[in-house]
Amino acid sequence: MASLKLPEVVPSPTHDSERLRKAVQGFGTDEKAIIMVLGHRNAQQRKEIRETYQQLYNESLIDRLHSELSGDFRKAVILWTYDPPERHARVAKDALKARWQRIKQLQVVVEIACASTPNHLVAVRQAYCSLFDCSLEEDIIASVAPPLRKLLVGLVSAYRYDKVAVNLEVAKAEASKLQEAINSKQLDHDHIVWILGTRNLFQLQETFACYKQLYGNTLEQDIKKCGNGDLESLLNVAILCTESPEKHFAKVVRDSILGLGTDEDSLSRAIVTRAEIDMLKVRFEYANMYKGSLDDDVIGDTSGDYRDFLMTLLGKGPKGEW
Amino acid sequence: MASLKLPEVVPSPTHDSERLRKAVQGFGTDEKAIIMVLGHRNAQQRKEIRETYQQLYNESLIDRLHSELSGDFRKAVILWTYDPPERHARVAKDALKARWQRIKQLQVVVEIACASTPNHLVAVRQAYCSLFDCSLEEDIIASVAPPLRKLLVGLVSAYRYDKVAVNLEVAKAEASKLQEAINSKQLDHDHIVWILGTRNLFQLQETFACYKQLYGNTLEQDIKKCGNGDLESLLNVAILCTESPEKHFAKVVRDSILGLGTDEDSLSRAIVTRAEIDMLKVRFEYANMYKGSLDDDVIGDTSGDYRDFLMTLLGKGPKGEW
Repeated sequence: MASLKLPEVVPSPTHDSERLRKAVQGFGTDEKAIIMVLGHRNAQQRKEIRETYQQLYNESLIDRLHSELSGDFRKAVILWTYDPPERHARVAKDALKARWQRIKQLQVVVEIACASTPNHLVAVRQAYCSLFDCSLEEDIIASVAPPLRKLLVGLVSAYRYDKVAVNLEVAKAEASKLQEAINSKQLDHDHIVWILGTRNLFQLQETFACYKQLYGNTLEQDIKKCGNGDLESLLNVAILCTESPEKHFAKVVRDSILGLGTDEDSLSRAIVTRAEIDMLKVRFEYANMYKGSLDDDVIGDTSGDYRDFLMTLLGKGPKGEW
Repeated sequence: MASLKLPEVVPSPTHDSERLRKAVQGFGTDEKAIIMVLGHRNAQQRKEIRETYQQLYNESLIDRLHSELSGDFRKAVILWTYDPPERHARVAKDALKARWQRIKQLQVVVEIACASTPNHLVAVRQAYCSLFDCSLEEDIIASVAPPLRKLLVGLVSAYRYDKVAVNLEVAKAEASKLQEAINSKQLDHDHIVWILGTRNLFQLQETFACYKQLYGNTLEQDIKKCGNGDLESLLNVAILCTESPEKHFAKVVRDSILGLGTDEDSLSRAIVTRAEIDMLKVRFEYANMYKGSLDDDVIGDTSGDYRDFLMTLLGKGPKGEW
């Protein structure tokens, strides 16, 4: 369900490195070649290219891209070129450091915690420690106050069972615990954090379904009734990412292009993160939810190399030699 | 600092598997050969032996050992033969299932969480999911009531930074938070769980040192003053494992042989777990703390093949061909 398109015969990392080297050397940069190569390689292939490029030219490909490219195009290409766990560790660090749009930034941390596989999330925590000399949890505690802190630490520390294992009795019991917490307006209750932070995704989906069956409203609706605050907003991102990451990312893309101006950081993050996971599903949900085409909307809100790069990741880039 | 002794030239896994096969085939079992082979191989070598044995004879080495051996010797040999993360996952499962000596069992879970490297702890959680179709945290929540639950979930979910990074200001501030929680007898305060469950070991050691400097008593002493309850006991195991795993394991060995009868499960766990990590330090601390010899005390409280096996892991087993 990835939108990323790979060549039928993938060139060797040496060949790719040589093409990239040619694209960044001399006067001017061949952005099109960079898009053609990197925009058509998966994570493992990009890793081999990074390593081979480093060996061949004794310089970091990422550093070179940073000095050759600019603007949103540069940000997106570099985000894409990182190893996925390192990418998410860096995104989380930036989100925790940011002083503006605080809740939108913390939503990104929730997204990383709840829309990742258990092994990916652990790899992100490992990468975070390696890159920043402290744990992700320590940075959350240092920069986020309770009650958001409690939820975030619980979510990023999860290592969920990752196969289908659903117990209906547990789902009913936990739906009732969620309802109790909501009724008493204790949205930071330990039970909420434990349920959202330890249960496997299939069990949680069953719990959410039970909740609606037992109490009429969806969990999101009842949480919204508690208020329009930060905790409510983070909880609802956690629930949406758990129920349907593709709906969450469709919403991220939509929100990034709605209204005046574009939120390129969010748009790039959504497309880069999901291009080799489930972007075809995201596209489908987008059409379903907004009665429009994700591709058309991205084209309408972007331009130049940046547009070409995103469309390449969406599987609809310009023609040329991959 | 491991006590485990390896042969200078390690035989091939095929050769070892053949020796083990010979030891378990026919009438009677050659326990001595089993001790000589498995008791002188490290985790990686035992892994290769398990895999080779399975391929050669189409049966699980562990199952065969289970049917050939008996009693405490069997338990110890099998515990040793498991891959270390699988071993700890199984030990944690047994501890959570046990109906007797509840707190002693939960102390084992704390020990696994606090005396392991971050990567080992994650590997234990992964093994736990693979073996038992649910996460370690889910089983803790299902079987342990608050406030112990909160502490245990926090500790097993840790992924600490694993290099030396100490901030004196943080140590002072967190020593003061610990003191506040103790003064208000809120030993399950979020701050305690966050501090113990996210900080790197070196930072925690500094915080404990600051605590003593600022408030006169050690943290353990002040926690004990809060009461003699279960939470106090688990907190103090967490603190001791963090400050000095070798002192903790010296204490486990000592407690297991003190008084009438021996707690073979604890004795085996301590020796099996630390034989290839820091058993020489444990032996040193034991002599320091109890003015006696760990080896002599183990010999005095055990017998037969079980004794020979433990002494082999302690680097002082019977002579013979390794």
